[in-house]
Amino acid sequence: MDDIAADPSHPRYASLLMRHRLEVAAERGMLAGSAMIAHGRGEAFDYLLGERTTESARQASLQALAHLHHATRPVLSVNGNVAALASDAMLRLAAFLSCPLEVNIFYRTPERMKAILSFLDERKNALGLDVEVLGHAPDATIPGLKGPRAACHKDGILTSDAILVPLEDGDRCEALVNMGKTVIVIDLNPLSRSARLATVTIVDELSRALEIMLDATEDLTKLAIDADYDHRDVLDAGLQEMLNGLKKD
Amino acid sequence: MDDIAADPSHPRYASLLMRHRLEVAAERGMLAGSAMIAHGRGEAFDYLLGERTTESARQASLQALAHLHHATRPVLSVNGNVAALASDAMLRLAAFLSCPLEVNIFYRTPERMKAILSFLDERKNALGLDVEVLGHAPDATIPGLKGPRAACHKDGILTSDAILVPLEDGDRCEALVNMGKTVIVIDLNPLSRSARLATVTIVDELSRALEIMLDATEDLTKLAIDADYDHRDVLDAGLQEMLNGLKKD
Repeated sequence: MDDIAADPSHPRYASLLMRHRLEVAAERGMLAGSAMIAHGRGEAFDYLLGERTTESARQASLQALAHLHHATRPVLSVNGNVAALASDAMLRLAAFLSCPLEVNIFYRTPERMKAILSFLDERKNALGLDVEVLGHAPDATIPGLKGPRAACHKDGILTSDAILVPLEDGDRCEALVNMGKTVIVIDLNPLSRSARLATVTIVDELSRALEIMLDATEDLTKLAIDADYDHRDVLDAGLQEMLNGLKKD
Repeated sequence: MDDIAADPSHPRYASLLMRHRLEVAAERGMLAGSAMIAHGRGEAFDYLLGERTTESARQASLQALAHLHHATRPVLSVNGNVAALASDAMLRLAAFLSCPLEVNIFYRTPERMKAILSFLDERKNALGLDVEVLGHAPDATIPGLKGPRAACHKDGILTSDAILVPLEDGDRCEALVNMGKTVIVIDLNPLSRSARLATVTIVDELSRALEIMLDATEDLTKLAIDADYDHRDVLDAGLQEMLNGLKKD
């Protein structure tokens, strides 16, 4: 890690910390070959957002938490980049929701699954949290997907009614939506297929979005589902924030 | 490389080919740790451009070539990502201009320099081009920069009057501008410090920009410097293209 990443007051601290986490995860074999490139794409969109949580993103995060809180069988999906960047926050959120966390990766290999599961296990023990981590023994498939990327747990993703899938691929997001689930996506690109298809899309950097959700768990009055919430309106607001970011000159 | 990258008619062919080149370069030790993330950032901006060369980018590429053609001592600067993505095109351009190509990297280590120089040597021999490749024995420094990143060749970058620095860091770009050189940048982010500080900025994907320059070398009538060229106007046009990309809904 660059020296400046050791100084939380440095303006690039958060960004360098995320890069450092990815480097550690890459060394542990948790990441797909395209992981760093995907992260870079996110960085560019975050740059356009001004690397801050917008009002529309905050609104989406609270609506997302409300959906998960009121779901009968919520589940949090974790891929390599999510495990690298935000294992602690995802575990804390799962603990609050008393729901399982399921490792579900696009380029599934036994080695990567093992590396991610082992990392989550370490973090779970370090935090002393009682969270069920799935992914080790998939016994079901997501309809509409082919090959290893369809694999999931019956007691996890398959029968969930609400699912948080941060940084998710478009095809997988579509398959989950087609299953009738409430699908919550965290995606910095408001034009991506995942961002458009989801029930609730949080256009924000992963760790910032999760921090807002975790902060909100301390005030249960905030956890009502907003019946007037308009997915497209909130997405358009995020897009408008980026347009403003490009225009500032 | 994914199977689809073997099929040039696939819509993602160009993008996957570039990723493949980066993977090969990473295996050869040519890239810095941040190379993949930087490439991903570029991909996001290219996505907003619609992954095509805009009219303003074409105009910038032709102006860039004219400057290099009319310079007394032009030089082409090559870093790890440029070597990975566009060695052949850079070597061809250097051959047309009868100018040296200098390897100049931000995170300079003897191992990376050697890996890049060896790759360029291979490509030069494969193409049968007579191009002087510098970088192996720096004997000068760029004023205003500290440490290994200031190192350069006296007969290359130091005494050049026009320099092409694709994918360049802002500090280095600024130092070159302060030396009074004509600095030509290829950068997909029209808001970056490099993009703003350069004499001519091509807001386009590296290999597309170089292809336009190489095509133009076949028609010498196109190689006049446009005295009315306005750097800021062209940059603003590139930004406007991206705004339009974000707006299409």
